[in-house]
Amino acid sequence: MAPAHPVSPLAPKTEPAMPAIDGVRFATAEAGIRYKGRTDVLLVLFDPGTTVAGVFTRSKCPSAPVEWCRERLAGGKARALVVNSGNANAFTGRKGRESTALTARLAAAAAGCAESEVFLASTGVIGEPLDASKFEGVLTDCASRTAPTPWIEAARAIMTTDTFPKVATRTVTLDGVSLTLNGIAKGAGMIAPDMATMLSYVMTDAPIAAPVLQQLLSEGVKGSFNAITVDSDTSTSDTLMAFATGTAATRGAAPITTATDPRLPAFRAAFDELLLDLSHQVVRDGEGARKFVEVAVRGAVDAGSAKRVALSIANSPLVKTAVAGEDANWGRVVMAVGKAGEPAERDRLAIWFGDIRVAVEGERDPAYDEAETSTYMRRDEIRITVDLGLGDGSARVWTCDLTKAYVEINGDYRS
Amino acid sequence: MAPAHPVSPLAPKTEPAMPAIDGVRFATAEAGIRYKGRTDVLLVLFDPGTTVAGVFTRSKCPSAPVEWCRERLAGGKARALVVNSGNANAFTGRKGRESTALTARLAAAAAGCAESEVFLASTGVIGEPLDASKFEGVLTDCASRTAPTPWIEAARAIMTTDTFPKVATRTVTLDGVSLTLNGIAKGAGMIAPDMATMLSYVMTDAPIAAPVLQQLLSEGVKGSFNAITVDSDTSTSDTLMAFATGTAATRGAAPITTATDPRLPAFRAAFDELLLDLSHQVVRDGEGARKFVEVAVRGAVDAGSAKRVALSIANSPLVKTAVAGEDANWGRVVMAVGKAGEPAERDRLAIWFGDIRVAVEGERDPAYDEAETSTYMRRDEIRITVDLGLGDGSARVWTCDLTKAYVEINGDYRS
Repeated sequence: MAPAHPVSPLAPKTEPAMPAIDGVRFATAEAGIRYKGRTDVLLVLFDPGTTVAGVFTRSKCPSAPVEWCRERLAGGKARALVVNSGNANAFTGRKGRESTALTARLAAAAAGCAESEVFLASTGVIGEPLDASKFEGVLTDCASRTAPTPWIEAARAIMTTDTFPKVATRTVTLDGVSLTLNGIAKGAGMIAPDMATMLSYVMTDAPIAAPVLQQLLSEGVKGSFNAITVDSDTSTSDTLMAFATGTAATRGAAPITTATDPRLPAFRAAFDELLLDLSHQVVRDGEGARKFVEVAVRGAVDAGSAKRVALSIANSPLVKTAVAGEDANWGRVVMAVGKAGEPAERDRLAIWFGDIRVAVEGERDPAYDEAETSTYMRRDEIRITVDLGLGDGSARVWTCDLTKAYVEINGDYRS
Repeated sequence: MAPAHPVSPLAPKTEPAMPAIDGVRFATAEAGIRYKGRTDVLLVLFDPGTTVAGVFTRSKCPSAPVEWCRERLAGGKARALVVNSGNANAFTGRKGRESTALTARLAAAAAGCAESEVFLASTGVIGEPLDASKFEGVLTDCASRTAPTPWIEAARAIMTTDTFPKVATRTVTLDGVSLTLNGIAKGAGMIAPDMATMLSYVMTDAPIAAPVLQQLLSEGVKGSFNAITVDSDTSTSDTLMAFATGTAATRGAAPITTATDPRLPAFRAAFDELLLDLSHQVVRDGEGARKFVEVAVRGAVDAGSAKRVALSIANSPLVKTAVAGEDANWGRVVMAVGKAGEPAERDRLAIWFGDIRVAVEGERDPAYDEAETSTYMRRDEIRITVDLGLGDGSARVWTCDLTKAYVEINGDYRS
């Protein structure tokens, strides 16, 4: 299926080879929820014993599937995941809760598990009732033909306005046993009347207790999915979940049951890398994005302050349009620092574009070279660094530029 | 002088007749700071006894003139105001403080007053040292030819990327004496490498003590200049000041010296109306604006919560692009409510575009009529109302849509 928009120029040039993961099988189907000629349902089945963790949108108006998942996470066990694209089942009231319950019932029957072991997500148009009865034959059929690959098809089935499917993989050795972590993600922005939603699923054969997995995920998200922004808007359906089948235990990897397990740091490193990779792919598919932007803040009073300043810069329409215009407009960076409301002193600020220091001690850098900076700003990937000169707090966040294509995608669809 | 951009389609169709104010005289000049063929300096002189009040940007990185004004406000007296356009004297370090001090010295000499009675503002390019020596002859010359009119010229001299000069006037009767309030404002957005700055000055012949004037201004700004947003970015130079010459006292209006004066409410009503008028003109000149948008939130747990929800909606790029696209996309309004972080319950939300209720109790309104709503969305002025259904808190804020012209103005100037 051809995407509605050309593939982002920031898309990864190659797709990684995605291995199978013991205990994970999946299938996709065309349920015809909204799209024609493309898959729109993903069913993933997990072997018994699979542990689960999740983090969700902070929206006060979450979708029915988000509420479903949150409530069932306490069990710590998962046997099935159903994701549909084309309809978000958000702001659909009582009908939304009913169709979520029906989807779970159908998936549980197809998977042969308890409804409480089924996790769900929906992404696409909002405010339209989701007719979950469409899943009836579809999920049974999917369950009958699951396979351990190809992961790219799993990523493709959950796309909405994404211009490319997002997959990533890592391996890590535990007790001499090679473990695999695979992830898929979707998210780009929103196009009428769809609402941007970020969905991501990480799956591994590592034997990890649910509370430890939850801690990994809650920590890992801070420097990855919670450190990216396309347009500062937050979906009612954002979902990031991790599933650990534990099947590597049969190959000799002893289970990780506590957060103090000395083997955890190595696993955490691979896990965090995977999250970072997936989250960056979401930014690279940001609506209308032509530049991938890293904003690094250091010298803040603490890490939280650094992150709030970094997000203020990354969310500033004026900074983002300046990057789109290939303009090293450090004045707008100062403005965004100032409006963050965090401790900052104008006369201690230093700002870099790439390795070029453009401002220092409250003034333009005396060595500032317009031509050199302009050349740098023409790159696809821009790094803005700010040193607040106050303390040791630092943070990095990632965003994209704000282009006319963003407005076109989100505003011009009726004209 | 022809503006750099066509006059906003949302500009007021007529200019009010602006009367003189006893005790206020002004002149404008071409100092050649940056622009050619247009005025860029405004000198206003006030009669002795004029009281002053001010509110300024909340930026942690304010400009040198903002720091100057803040420090001198405690005196409560003003004899001169100097505003220049073309250079913001922001992020200019020690040089910035020096040129502010020099400007004040020159103005004090020209006006024959103390430096501490001079108030200043600069707007325009940032990070460039402002050569205040250019004001030397200019301010003396201005002082020699001040006049009580025409106000439109005062408004014109302080414009940067504004597409029209902003003036407003009101009258109010105090002790049988007719008082006048005049205001000027500038602010639109930003164009490279200028930084958007909102400046506004209100002048009246009312006899009002400085502390009372300050209280009026600090309260009045909440529902006007602090309730508007073009792009959520905050200038380092935002300044709103009020000057009361008190000359009406000679015509029989007894001074207002306390906030409990029973004559204050009538004056406050006119004062607040003037601030609202001026602040709306700033939104109407928002960069690339094609629609003027009122966001009204009610049913919040309190007024502060209502305002935060209203600003979350008004600042959402997705809501603003939807308005630009003439799309009654209430799903994005729900999203913006949800991300505000304020108490909200999805199933109690109701949303209107104009008088058309589009969503109620967590679902699309059963009576929703697409055609009727589309017709409404074609208007120049759009009202979005949200009832959270939780309490009695309400707030109104104003914004404009987000169009490709915004991106063009702020991002394309190098291409």
